[in-house]
Amino acid sequence: MIARTLFELAELCGAAVEGDGSRKVIGPAPLGEAGREHVSFFHHPRYANELRSTRAAGVVVALSFAAEAPDHLTLLRCEDPSRAFTEIVRVFSRAPRRPAPGVHPTACAHPSAEIADTASVGPLCTVGPGSRLGEGVVLHAQVALGEGVLVGAESELFPMVVVYDGIQIGERCVIQAGCVIGSDGHGFEPSDQGWIKIPHTGTVIVEDDVEIGANTTIDRGRFGATRIGRGTKIDNLVQLGHNVIVGEGSMIVAQVGIAGSALIGAGAVLGGQAGVNGHARIGERAQVGAQSGVFGDVPAGQIVLGHPARPRTEALRSMAQAARVPGLVEKLRQLEQRVAELERERSVSGEGSA
Amino acid sequence: MIARTLFELAELCGAAVEGDGSRKVIGPAPLGEAGREHVSFFHHPRYANELRSTRAAGVVVALSFAAEAPDHLTLLRCEDPSRAFTEIVRVFSRAPRRPAPGVHPTACAHPSAEIADTASVGPLCTVGPGSRLGEGVVLHAQVALGEGVLVGAESELFPMVVVYDGIQIGERCVIQAGCVIGSDGHGFEPSDQGWIKIPHTGTVIVEDDVEIGANTTIDRGRFGATRIGRGTKIDNLVQLGHNVIVGEGSMIVAQVGIAGSALIGAGAVLGGQAGVNGHARIGERAQVGAQSGVFGDVPAGQIVLGHPARPRTEALRSMAQAARVPGLVEKLRQLEQRVAELERERSVSGEGSA
Amino acid sequence: MIARTLFELAELCGAAVEGDGSRKVIGPAPLGEAGREHVSFFHHPRYANELRSTRAAGVVVALSFAAEAPDHLTLLRCEDPSRAFTEIVRVFSRAPRRPAPGVHPTACAHPSAEIADTASVGPLCTVGPGSRLGEGVVLHAQVALGEGVLVGAESELFPMVVVYDGIQIGERCVIQAGCVIGSDGHGFEPSDQGWIKIPHTGTVIVEDDVEIGANTTIDRGRFGATRIGRGTKIDNLVQLGHNVIVGEGSMIVAQVGIAGSALIGAGAVLGGQAGVNGHARIGERAQVGAQSGVFGDVPAGQIVLGHPARPRTEALRSMAQAARVPGLVEKLRQLEQRVAELERERSVSGEGSA
Repeated sequence: MIARTLFELAELCGAAVEGDGSRKVIGPAPLGEAGREHVSFFHHPRYANELRSTRAAGVVVALSFAAEAPDHLTLLRCEDPSRAFTEIVRVFSRAPRRPAPGVHPTACAHPSAEIADTASVGPLCTVGPGSRLGEGVVLHAQVALGEGVLVGAESELFPMVVVYDGIQIGERCVIQAGCVIGSDGHGFEPSDQGWIKIPHTGTVIVEDDVEIGANTTIDRGRFGATRIGRGTKIDNLVQLGHNVIVGEGSMIVAQVGIAGSALIGAGAVLGGQAGVNGHARIGERAQVGAQSGVFGDVPAGQIVLGHPARPRTEALRSMAQAARVPGLVEKLRQLEQRVAELERERSVSGEGSA
Repeated sequence: MIARTLFELAELCGAAVEGDGSRKVIGPAPLGEAGREHVSFFHHPRYANELRSTRAAGVVVALSFAAEAPDHLTLLRCEDPSRAFTEIVRVFSRAPRRPAPGVHPTACAHPSAEIADTASVGPLCTVGPGSRLGEGVVLHAQVALGEGVLVGAESELFPMVVVYDGIQIGERCVIQAGCVIGSDGHGFEPSDQGWIKIPHTGTVIVEDDVEIGANTTIDRGRFGATRIGRGTKIDNLVQLGHNVIVGEGSMIVAQVGIAGSALIGAGAVLGGQAGVNGHARIGERAQVGAQSGVFGDVPAGQIVLGHPARPRTEALRSMAQAARVPGLVEKLRQLEQRVAELERERSVSGEGSA
Repeated sequence: MIARTLFELAELCGAAVEGDGSRKVIGPAPLGEAGREHVSFFHHPRYANELRSTRAAGVVVALSFAAEAPDHLTLLRCEDPSRAFTEIVRVFSRAPRRPAPGVHPTACAHPSAEIADTASVGPLCTVGPGSRLGEGVVLHAQVALGEGVLVGAESELFPMVVVYDGIQIGERCVIQAGCVIGSDGHGFEPSDQGWIKIPHTGTVIVEDDVEIGANTTIDRGRFGATRIGRGTKIDNLVQLGHNVIVGEGSMIVAQVGIAGSALIGAGAVLGGQAGVNGHARIGERAQVGAQSGVFGDVPAGQIVLGHPARPRTEALRSMAQAARVPGLVEKLRQLEQRVAELERERSVSGEGSA
């Protein structure tokens, strides 16, 4: 067990200490779960109650922090509490388990596969003919690589990952458990005999420094490649169709679905459960709200929301409009009465003047 | 093959028999598929046609049942047809397959793992160092447990389940095939060099009597734990983010997505494909409609619907409003004409009086 | 490497050649990625830019094609460019890898399983007691079949597919990686002791010529069967609940969720991320838009959209209505002023005439 003083942690992340910095802590914990031996962090007013009652020894807070906190609490005040806290979490983290290099005796690697000496192939993995694993690659237990798969140096694949024949994965990628890369795209032509399968002879190219979440599925190209740009981060249970191109440094949150041949620009962010239509083009650094449905193109830098997705201000205004309809109905009713009254008087007055 | 008379089944579930109770049946079947050797049940007017033409020997119905049914049909009338029928289904069910205790010779269990004598580890499973399996635990084929995993007594894990290092699973849990527990949360900090991964050093705690569906994914905490409360039932393809806390006895239907640090109260029910924003709090026994998007907090006991989710009556009224707009447009047009007429006359009358 | 002249390819798919048909190509590629040794195709105005700058040797186009294209480009003009191009892709495709017949020595097949001589069971698969694999069946690596599973002739199952006990799969089916067939349905009865699991003693019947996508989940029936009709094509990450019946030749796109006992008619098409309520009935050849939520029944042939799903024209009109509300508000404001003016004058005039 590692123990550190709050002074040591503050120094590590450039924070100023207010209170007793000599107290020792053994790790990070959320405000509500922390004991006197933990350090925690506060970043959102939503957690004001947890802050008031926390038993933590110290809390990382923002420079502007002014909320009510227990007297015993030592504050570590800094510019970016989230990043500072990440540094602190790292101090207390066991290095993640790295299995020893070598091919586990229960793994089933084809003799023609080229596996670097520093790579690790876990128990009950399969590695197909002609596949190549770079230096420091880790396949945890029960990973399945097809024929002619390339995995770049230092990439890590968790259990039950499936990589179909001929797929390329870059360096320093992390592929979480159960992810499937290279399944056939959903392409069928109608015919008199029912749906005819379109052959999918393309591939998937996952560039360097990509992370892909658990049970996410990425289809191979019909021809050419489905491509995930360098540094892009993809969450769990995401679906990427055939020939989708994702630019560099994009962020795709859980359960997003992107249909075939859509183009996602570099640095774009797609919120959870959003959907993107086939062949749609989402510009660089554009943002798509959670659960939104993108049917057309989205210009670079634009934030879109709703179903169908529209620019943010337009979408919010439109969501607000329905709420105004009952008021309109009532106003219209009143106005009708006033007009009817005017008409009645006109008629009386008309009679009178007749 | 077990055969039972309708009298025997009626006694079992406290039903009153109307018709020939001496007929023997060999099992349950839906109304439309049943033959003369089956018992069925009727619980929704939607199936009135199937009822009229069913060939079943007997049908379990509610006390209030008064629909048209074939003359040959024996009725088993009772208070709660669904629960009664569950009892009947159970009579005819083979006990689900329980593999023999012991570790299959093809399984790969680390010598330091502690496996109870009555536990069963199926073919081609992996069990990491220091993991502990309680009495009566069943791992079906090809399950992957990491290092230091705890599985409580009588829990059952189906093929391809992946449990990462250090995760705790309670007693009498059922984890369906392909479920992933303990993958890293989707946490990244922006930087000049692109997204920097936030270490996820927390865990997942699955309490007793939880069921988790096929291919569902549950991320580990950034620190602290993602926690699934006792007796909660989770369907297939659900996503639970890092540090999500689900209370006891909740119900989460298929394809729901819950973002990081959200709090789901005890007894809450989330409909299929619903989404919950990060840090949102859903109160005890609250209900979220299918496909709804929860962005804020939901008070205890409230039923919410829509995107963004609002209280049920408000949401339904709002959905109805758009339909009123065309009527408003027409009314407004008519009123404008009437006002224009008044103005014209006023003008004429004004001229007249001038 | 296969090389073909454009003449040869044109003859193959019945296209007329405009330009130099003697040029040789070595494969298909998208317009933007193609080099001088590739053939490509153009089917949507959206790709007009890519067409203008493509380096491809030849492009398959429609009879009506009249867009601007580089001078060097040879056109292959035909009636159905997509189908023609599929033919061309096929010419250059390696036949997909078919593992050699036989049971891999690392596979774990129960002695009572009946495996046809021409079937192939890949490395580290498990095949339970009494299962039967027809002629030409392919199980790729690490597939898990339970007890009493039937797989019809020429069906192909990719890695990590899980088939529970007693499930039937027809002939010529393709099941992509990670798909789970036969998990228990999400059925629980409330009780004083919490949720009580309803036993699921039914099965799943997958008829001939069905394709099922990666990580899709299909629950077994509560009793009776969940059934996927002949020739139906299901995409990735789809959820089918217990006792769902899907007719023949339907198309279910990625991330669709269909709740228990729903009925999907033959030839129906469900767009991505759509949801269908339990017990709902979708008619033959009906179409459900992407992200739509079907709560009631849909008549045969109808196209529905939105949440809740309504007939297409109605739904589109309704989506357009909200946009009219701001105009209504303004019109109403103006009308109020005009009426107030009339009232003021009436009052003045009334005073005058008093």
